[in-house]
Amino acid sequence: MPTVDWARELRGRSQPVTIGVDVGGTKVLGAAIDSLGNVVGQSRAATPDGAAFPNDEAAADRVIEAIAEVVLSLDPDPPGGDPPALCVGIPGLVDDAGTMHFAPNLPAGVGVDFKARIAASVGTRRVVIDNDATCATVGEWLLGGARGATDALVVTLGTGIGAGIVSNGALVRGAHGYAGEAGHVVVDPSGPACSCGRRGCWERYASGSGLARLAREAASAGRLRGVIAEVSGDPESVRGEHVTAAASAGDPGALEVMGELGWWIALGLANLTALLDPSVIVIGGGLVSAGELLLEPTRRAFAEISYATHDRPQVRIVEAELGELAGAVGAALVARGESRDTTGAVGART
Amino acid sequence: MPTVDWARELRGRSQPVTIGVDVGGTKVLGAAIDSLGNVVGQSRAATPDGAAFPNDEAAADRVIEAIAEVVLSLDPDPPGGDPPALCVGIPGLVDDAGTMHFAPNLPAGVGVDFKARIAASVGTRRVVIDNDATCATVGEWLLGGARGATDALVVTLGTGIGAGIVSNGALVRGAHGYAGEAGHVVVDPSGPACSCGRRGCWERYASGSGLARLAREAASAGRLRGVIAEVSGDPESVRGEHVTAAASAGDPGALEVMGELGWWIALGLANLTALLDPSVIVIGGGLVSAGELLLEPTRRAFAEISYATHDRPQVRIVEAELGELAGAVGAALVARGESRDTTGAVGART
Repeated sequence: MPTVDWARELRGRSQPVTIGVDVGGTKVLGAAIDSLGNVVGQSRAATPDGAAFPNDEAAADRVIEAIAEVVLSLDPDPPGGDPPALCVGIPGLVDDAGTMHFAPNLPAGVGVDFKARIAASVGTRRVVIDNDATCATVGEWLLGGARGATDALVVTLGTGIGAGIVSNGALVRGAHGYAGEAGHVVVDPSGPACSCGRRGCWERYASGSGLARLAREAASAGRLRGVIAEVSGDPESVRGEHVTAAASAGDPGALEVMGELGWWIALGLANLTALLDPSVIVIGGGLVSAGELLLEPTRRAFAEISYATHDRPQVRIVEAELGELAGAVGAALVARGESRDTTGAVGART
Repeated sequence: MPTVDWARELRGRSQPVTIGVDVGGTKVLGAAIDSLGNVVGQSRAATPDGAAFPNDEAAADRVIEAIAEVVLSLDPDPPGGDPPALCVGIPGLVDDAGTMHFAPNLPAGVGVDFKARIAASVGTRRVVIDNDATCATVGEWLLGGARGATDALVVTLGTGIGAGIVSNGALVRGAHGYAGEAGHVVVDPSGPACSCGRRGCWERYASGSGLARLAREAASAGRLRGVIAEVSGDPESVRGEHVTAAASAGDPGALEVMGELGWWIALGLANLTALLDPSVIVIGGGLVSAGELLLEPTRRAFAEISYATHDRPQVRIVEAELGELAGAVGAALVARGESRDTTGAVGART
């Protein structure tokens, strides 16, 4: 439920405030930040049902309504004066004009002109659309776990995997704004089918759905009796959160599955490190709520399987500091053009 | 055999000349360029035997001698006045001080302070040491197939795979100068063993040695009778060049193997594209001498297996324009600080 207390707080500020919204598979999160980067407003709504169906216009409408609900709860009275600039981070390939072109985790929005539709829903204000993982990267780079780094990666492990790259003190957007799709680096061409239509993408192994798959395999092999009992004996019903809960409680089979998950996460991080040589990797997304249960086996495997692991400086692997708000806060920074890099080039989309 | 005619040519120029050297697994190539980027001198020597043995001091000495031979044939009389600046590209992880730390394809040089040893061998002059693939990337980006691109990849397919990344109009070096090790992105964790100590690295499939492996497999399956006849019936003796020669002559089995090779090259390029969204990919290295026999199946597979292939602008896949001189010319550019990016930041190592 959106709260309006924040809105009053926001209105009372003299510093220019911007608003960011992060559209996820299950929830739409909003944040308002002031010019010092303080979060002065938060809001949330559920991602509407149907967003997972391809090219569903009605579902796309409901997603836009949810975004507008979140924005208007932060800033209910937009027109008149200079309303806060807004950036919305959405999961998929977003072109410079704000239209989404490919989104395995939000297929209802493909082809939708988010920029125009959101602007129409929230009153006249400057609206920027960006990729959700890019927004989270800007948030963690400027205000979170990668502060001060010139070469960093931000990887969000949720239903899928999103990522953002900072290189030479600048955000890497690529030639068309499509960079950072680390979840779709193929790590086994004969691996399980991916929602993108190919096989063996990293996110089939190292995301929430990857954890569920590893868990179902372990369950079928009889290694997760405690967890299976929880889901009435049906291995097909095992989800990631069942495993993390059992691992927290010390279940040996569940801890073993978390170790496997850590190995797969580390494999992808090792690939990214061979290519990009970061000094720090920030891990965010829903899976990171498992904390050290996830990070410890990931760091251990990373130290073992990285390329030239004994001949290079250690890479810090840290938890996202902004938590679930990284995407929304980063979007609010993008809204004010703050993905500006340390050498003066501008990484923002305007 | 080095030729000294070029040296006279070089001495007669008024523009500042710089020298670049590219140390490969089989040959050491040198180039001198003038301030307009014209190649005004070329030289070569064989890479000494023994360079492939780990930590072999005597072999490392012979590598340094070969480098000095190439440099001095271009500029036989260094001291007095202002001798041309020199950059040497070597295959491995090179730190900022010029020492090599990890080099599966030139293990004799690990731990060697190339910068000091080369400076001592060629007379007092400014010596920069850099990664060979980084040098080739600078060459192709500033003077070759990626001219004018802000986001580009240069991939050299030789015994192994080297790569360089241009992003936001700047060379990506990473936090420690180790970026670009695309050959060691793991594309199948249960794949064949790699010289780096791990399994299933891209260069086990998509390099010259990868081609030889694909060919041996095809030969064992009876698919390369013509080629096997050439090597006295022993499939273990099949090398990459046997396959490319047979494919050029129209041998169907060899063409099939080139198609497989193209698929594996495309898989890795698709991984890089998902991450970095380049507008152009330049392919260099020894394998590119196969020309369209290699590039055509690579482009075809890339168009099929890229992430979101139908929803993103086409990526140009082109042959390196500087040919085997890309690394040496790029090194000569690095020597003069010319890996400067289009936004003014400096990518050179000094």
